[in-house]
Amino acid sequence: MTIAPHPSSSAPAYHALTGTFTRLYRLSHLGSIVGWDQAAMMPSKGNAARGAALAELQVLLHQTLTDVRLPDLLKAAAGEVLQDAERSNLREMRRDWEQANLLPERLVEAQSLASTRCEHAWRGQRQANDWKGFLENFVPVVTLAREEAQLLSQAQGVSPYDALMAKYEPGTRSAEIERIFGEVKTWLPALVQQVRDKQAGETLLQASGPFPVEQQRALGLEVMDRLGFDFEGGRLDISAHPFCGGVPEDVRITTRYSEDDFVRSLMGIIHETGHARYEQNLPRELVHLPVGRARSMGIHESQSLSFEMQLGRSAAFVQSIAPLLNQQFGAQEAFAPENLARLLTRVQPGLIRVDADELTYPAHIILRFEIERALIDGEIDAADIPALWDEKMQAYLGLDTRGNFQQGCLQDIHWPSGSFGYFPSYTLGAMYAAQYFATLRKQQPDVDARIAAGDLSPVMDWLNHNIWSQASQWSTDALVQRATGETLNPAHFRAHLERRYL
Amino acid sequence: MTIAPHPSSSAPAYHALTGTFTRLYRLSHLGSIVGWDQAAMMPSKGNAARGAALAELQVLLHQTLTDVRLPDLLKAAAGEVLQDAERSNLREMRRDWEQANLLPERLVEAQSLASTRCEHAWRGQRQANDWKGFLENFVPVVTLAREEAQLLSQAQGVSPYDALMAKYEPGTRSAEIERIFGEVKTWLPALVQQVRDKQAGETLLQASGPFPVEQQRALGLEVMDRLGFDFEGGRLDISAHPFCGGVPEDVRITTRYSEDDFVRSLMGIIHETGHARYEQNLPRELVHLPVGRARSMGIHESQSLSFEMQLGRSAAFVQSIAPLLNQQFGAQEAFAPENLARLLTRVQPGLIRVDADELTYPAHIILRFEIERALIDGEIDAADIPALWDEKMQAYLGLDTRGNFQQGCLQDIHWPSGSFGYFPSYTLGAMYAAQYFATLRKQQPDVDARIAAGDLSPVMDWLNHNIWSQASQWSTDALVQRATGETLNPAHFRAHLERRYL
Repeated sequence: MTIAPHPSSSAPAYHALTGTFTRLYRLSHLGSIVGWDQAAMMPSKGNAARGAALAELQVLLHQTLTDVRLPDLLKAAAGEVLQDAERSNLREMRRDWEQANLLPERLVEAQSLASTRCEHAWRGQRQANDWKGFLENFVPVVTLAREEAQLLSQAQGVSPYDALMAKYEPGTRSAEIERIFGEVKTWLPALVQQVRDKQAGETLLQASGPFPVEQQRALGLEVMDRLGFDFEGGRLDISAHPFCGGVPEDVRITTRYSEDDFVRSLMGIIHETGHARYEQNLPRELVHLPVGRARSMGIHESQSLSFEMQLGRSAAFVQSIAPLLNQQFGAQEAFAPENLARLLTRVQPGLIRVDADELTYPAHIILRFEIERALIDGEIDAADIPALWDEKMQAYLGLDTRGNFQQGCLQDIHWPSGSFGYFPSYTLGAMYAAQYFATLRKQQPDVDARIAAGDLSPVMDWLNHNIWSQASQWSTDALVQRATGETLNPAHFRAHLERRYL
Repeated sequence: MTIAPHPSSSAPAYHALTGTFTRLYRLSHLGSIVGWDQAAMMPSKGNAARGAALAELQVLLHQTLTDVRLPDLLKAAAGEVLQDAERSNLREMRRDWEQANLLPERLVEAQSLASTRCEHAWRGQRQANDWKGFLENFVPVVTLAREEAQLLSQAQGVSPYDALMAKYEPGTRSAEIERIFGEVKTWLPALVQQVRDKQAGETLLQASGPFPVEQQRALGLEVMDRLGFDFEGGRLDISAHPFCGGVPEDVRITTRYSEDDFVRSLMGIIHETGHARYEQNLPRELVHLPVGRARSMGIHESQSLSFEMQLGRSAAFVQSIAPLLNQQFGAQEAFAPENLARLLTRVQPGLIRVDADELTYPAHIILRFEIERALIDGEIDAADIPALWDEKMQAYLGLDTRGNFQQGCLQDIHWPSGSFGYFPSYTLGAMYAAQYFATLRKQQPDVDARIAAGDLSPVMDWLNHNIWSQASQWSTDALVQRATGETLNPAHFRAHLERRYL
């Protein structure tokens, strides 16, 4: 997708709009980098000033998007002669504009301040298992999110929760998510049990640590390099909650290290590298415009999970990286490819979402989706979360979390930072990723053999051609349809799990 | 200095202005942090997008300062009943406003873009000794700086160079600098010779390396801690050109390490810690207003040089930190306090300003001042710099720099980044620092004994009381007069050098 040079005189309104959105892109760059800094670098006393600066920026972006000249420009541009990519760009600009214009500046500023405060305090409160202290800052975050959801909901004619989810997954409704997740709930528990029974009979050698941070970092960098991460346009650092941030021209991914476990950091790095390559390979000439952005958070997670789950835990990929483990940590029998692949596909229900195996992960998401939907739609209050959390952990994974907030409802950064409606994207992403690889294997039956030989180009070329280079030119459904011949079909996910784990 | 709660209804114009300047402070926060990131963290491919983002921010700050409502507010506020600190704040706000309103937005944006491009390319060109490549990007930087200087000069009735210098040293004229520097030139060469003759007869043990980076960093952190750096409100990182950046609430200092020399990094860290403590101890309740800023760059350098030169290289301080060197690098005879003090006061003309000893340092500044004054006032062109540089290095320090651009006119970040008129601040700072310590020793004759015993509180309390807490309440002359009983008196600097080195 490119936008050919086009005399601005022939579409003056459209070109005035791209000027405004380029300015928004540049100013957002500042927010993205200081946001990364806040999580990866900033000392604690910097937070109040940082929060004030970021809120000021949010207000500025909001003011720019609510400029009184924009409605006329959007209307005029709709009547101008535009290329296809320009028309897609106009659609995305209008979406941003609509979203912003439904919210008052006061609310935008209050949300930014409340979530910065809540998230910062949460870092310590999580450590201290302090649900009560957390709740104090969290109640205003929920109140403001509900207010936002109400305003968007009324204007868009969808439920409050759907209105928030649309920020991450435009076009997706919670009724559809409920249908998909409901179906998963019918087969997942039995599959988990079946796999656990099977794995109980397998011999599994545990790798023996400690695994020094320096070696883990060197391993991570080497694997990022093999996965094509461009180090001249990005970095790897440390943060409490791993993420992919920065800007497409300078992508910042983070991890965290524990010396008694190398798998968590390694797989986390592979995951974030998937996000990073999407960003690094968005069409550079359009990256400053809404059409040049990643399509949705579900599609973003489909990249990280293509890397981490479809590729990273496959027997073929494991075979290609096993020698690196021997190099970094010294030779161990546990690093034999077959054993390593078993380690990376071991199923074990646990309390922590980001440490969950591929098979139990959807249960973590379904739990969060059900709670946050009820919270935003007003069926429950923030204070009800711990009891519900425990009830669902018992029901879906058979685990007791009573009183354990740190490893329960305080574990994720999403709610403290005011993000409601994001969680479904993870499992949608896992499903899209399974669908991509089903397509890829049909198109190129030798793909696993090539991966095992260290040649990742079939995977990278496919993702680049079908996803990265397409940015936001198409709706999510159209993007997936063009790439795989059908819209989201969760059957591929189930088939992938059964093929890999049974 | 505090500003007592004050009903905004009694000074509505003043309070509207503080709202605007608080907004400017918050937005500048974003620029300060991403500026630090650019120097300390950013990979190379991020530079173009970073440059565009920073230029957008500069334009925004400029638009805010040229808002058509400000002139009326400034006029109205001048007639309102204000406290002393508020009146000082109004004076500083007016100064910012005047400065910005003399420059067109087009120029501000062009300068930001040209200097980002030039500075970024300079990093590689310096390594490659590529004057010709540098000159290509540098000519537009000079052209734009001259344009700025002309505009400011015409309005302010001073020379173009003086107009630029006023951004860093309000109230100082180059005629005064020429007088002071001219006087230094009458005694400095002879003093350098005399000291070198004396030192030639001294026994000096060189410390033997390598000095591993990790140990150097640990030593630096320990010394920062002793100097009172607040690590909850700041960080130490690495950059090619050491600096103190960030924001008062979160001060970022940088250093660079060389494994065959620990002195450069150690003294650099002490220097930047001086800047940092000034920023960290500005009156917190005013830090978002112009009156709460550091007074000038000369006063800023007087803090770094109070730390590095007056304190850091004193026999008393050296005695207190010598045990740390034995701890980090293993015991060496060279770390005996008397020998260490001799190492830190060794005089040796060299090519690099930032590595220069205290005695030859002013020669580096005088050379740069003379060249940049001529450049901005249009007496020479950018292409003339290398020949002039060599001529002056020969005359002032007896060193040949022909063809050695890397260690000659390409060594400093100031000109590539478009900063002209800053250099005099270093030597003004050294002179102020000597004047402070002369005052302090008169007031507290036991100060050196206390420093030797590891008690730095007399120094820190004096600086805090007289400089840090005063921020920009007074003019530079008034600040120095209040602190030392007289305005700038370069005789203290000469006396200090003679006392220490003869």
